[in-house]
Amino acid sequence: MKTTLSLILFGLLSYALHAQQDIFARNEIISPEINADHTVTFRLFGPEASEVTITGSWMPREGFSAPYKEMQKGDSGVWVYTTKVLEPELYRYSFSVDGIRNTDPSNAHAIRDVGSISNIFLIEGGIADLYKVNDVPHGTVAFRWYDSPGNHKKRRLTVYTPAGYENGKKKYPVLYLLHGIGGDEEAWIGSGRAIQILDNLIAQGKAKPMIVVMPNGNVAQKAAPGMSSDGFVVPSFRLPNTMDGTFEATFIDIMNFVESNYRTIKSKKSRAIAGLSMGGFHTANISLNYPNTFDYIGLFSSALGVQSNNVSSPIYENRDEKLQQQNENGFKLYWMAIGNGDMERILKGNQDFREKMDGIGMKYVYKETDGGHTWENWRKYLSEFVPLLFK
Amino acid sequence: MKTTLSLILFGLLSYALHAQQDIFARNEIISPEINADHTVTFRLFGPEASEVTITGSWMPREGFSAPYKEMQKGDSGVWVYTTKVLEPELYRYSFSVDGIRNTDPSNAHAIRDVGSISNIFLIEGGIADLYKVNDVPHGTVAFRWYDSPGNHKKRRLTVYTPAGYENGKKKYPVLYLLHGIGGDEEAWIGSGRAIQILDNLIAQGKAKPMIVVMPNGNVAQKAAPGMSSDGFVVPSFRLPNTMDGTFEATFIDIMNFVESNYRTIKSKKSRAIAGLSMGGFHTANISLNYPNTFDYIGLFSSALGVQSNNVSSPIYENRDEKLQQQNENGFKLYWMAIGNGDMERILKGNQDFREKMDGIGMKYVYKETDGGHTWENWRKYLSEFVPLLFK
Repeated sequence: MKTTLSLILFGLLSYALHAQQDIFARNEIISPEINADHTVTFRLFGPEASEVTITGSWMPREGFSAPYKEMQKGDSGVWVYTTKVLEPELYRYSFSVDGIRNTDPSNAHAIRDVGSISNIFLIEGGIADLYKVNDVPHGTVAFRWYDSPGNHKKRRLTVYTPAGYENGKKKYPVLYLLHGIGGDEEAWIGSGRAIQILDNLIAQGKAKPMIVVMPNGNVAQKAAPGMSSDGFVVPSFRLPNTMDGTFEATFIDIMNFVESNYRTIKSKKSRAIAGLSMGGFHTANISLNYPNTFDYIGLFSSALGVQSNNVSSPIYENRDEKLQQQNENGFKLYWMAIGNGDMERILKGNQDFREKMDGIGMKYVYKETDGGHTWENWRKYLSEFVPLLFK
Repeated sequence: MKTTLSLILFGLLSYALHAQQDIFARNEIISPEINADHTVTFRLFGPEASEVTITGSWMPREGFSAPYKEMQKGDSGVWVYTTKVLEPELYRYSFSVDGIRNTDPSNAHAIRDVGSISNIFLIEGGIADLYKVNDVPHGTVAFRWYDSPGNHKKRRLTVYTPAGYENGKKKYPVLYLLHGIGGDEEAWIGSGRAIQILDNLIAQGKAKPMIVVMPNGNVAQKAAPGMSSDGFVVPSFRLPNTMDGTFEATFIDIMNFVESNYRTIKSKKSRAIAGLSMGGFHTANISLNYPNTFDYIGLFSSALGVQSNNVSSPIYENRDEKLQQQNENGFKLYWMAIGNGDMERILKGNQDFREKMDGIGMKYVYKETDGGHTWENWRKYLSEFVPLLFK
């Protein structure tokens, strides 16, 4: 007897679908299809197209051109491509239709990374199970606005509070987690899967419950593109005052906000800071300039090699002395990781920094992994770093 | 002397751009470009494409086919289309390249609506200024998980708390804001611009500061597609147990969560409920089945005509008696709005319901607007409804 309702609802669906809302896009096409053997089949209906290719984050890169594979057109007008067996990972991909980059109209799941939107899919197993949403207690994700007197503006940040925080009275340690150049306060919860990594590691008892604060490292921005009164601007890789010391100098505004708005343990042993690329550079400099503030420091593919001596900021002065002082003050963990396929300059910057640390007998953990300057590495680094904190 | 840093950063940019992260997509092409006269120019670089069209929410619809316009290919291989002068509004659009639906690779701003992703842009002025992020005090947006014993699962919802809530002690009224079929707990903050509408109306003194709770009306789901352990599923228009009374019956779980986790005023005069389409149907039925709970009821293009008598649930029984009781109990505002271009069945359902209300002398506000079953209307209805609450 439910037929009547179904038919009526189907009428509503058809109406909304065809007449006023293009909310579906050919979803009779299944793409991507993750096959039992962990190959993945992509499909795109396009009988009129002449050439369709796919590029994906699993394809090895050589040189500066994005790798791609041609898709094959079947009799039905559906273009098809099937990968080799893929390792567990969160992958992103896009199509190119007659030379124009395209998202997959059959896949509603996509992530914006700086200025472009790519579709995503996940192959389960191994480390990728940390990137999945699992049936575990979930923390809360909030977008908050804080006052940054140092930047003369209100700015937006993302805060993760672990399961149990909202209804409890307990105080928690804090990890400040910084993004790379071109990123914003949404980068770590998008491509970085930080929420899932934290939820899962905490549920498994591998990480202490902690607050994770993900600020926006571009002081010229109030918020991620589209989220401030600047409107739907084109996301920019390089913004004014990026890496000139201003973010580090005004980081105190973020800490003040967090420590007065959240139940935090306000001590060095309960504060960690980490970041990727530019965020690793920020991390190194914040930990130098805020003495005795952080016991845990994480540098993920840190852009140590890109800082110029020509930028004048007190933040970047007397770094050798500050490093010496940081070493003398002591800390629990200075953790560095980088892909052996990263840029020469970044690799050299990290090597120079380690030599400086070695020179003063400063202890650190250094991991050189495969891969390069990629989210695949940064997710792995976060997954390894977080269990080491606040122990 | 900043040249060195710029060059180094440019190196980093180029590397990340070309070698390991496709984070930019031809952003030398400006699209969309909102011209001074409020015409809008779209551009797409595609020298190899044979036919490129654009469809957008400003194009009038006739019948069941999506309207579209052909784009013109210039000598440079850039396809171009310029609209007529557009009224202030948040618009969405997509391209079609040789028959395949495409997002605009030059526009990083997009919204998922059920199963598809469309690009967006905004023409300022008039009501659209409520949809913009303006330099006003911003509320907080949080994704929370609540326990729904009635559904035997934890479920995700979105909560807006107004500026001042987080640091204050004050108690606030609550608006429960429900989505339509195919939507989820992200619909009102995506296409609905609810955050911006609330921030702006509150800042202008036109609305009382209030908490807005946006739950997921599909009880088969724990969370929006991709946000639960169901993984990156294809979003579905119709899910099991949708509109069978279960959401309404288990709405108590949401209220219990909100009233025990937020500083709410726990009284009828400080509770409002509203919803669009299926959410309007849910709203009507929740207000019938939770007597003396809500003083403010908002039905936006309510799907009153789609409910079948064949679904058996105590929620849908004795509705005439319940309506009589609701009228006798009293309320401050019963507000209904619908577009005159909506489906016949929906229009008739609303008319039948109004006749029933008229029959028992029940007061309501009824607005028939232009347009149909669209987000354009629902944003407008929310913008008109919210200032009427808690006065």
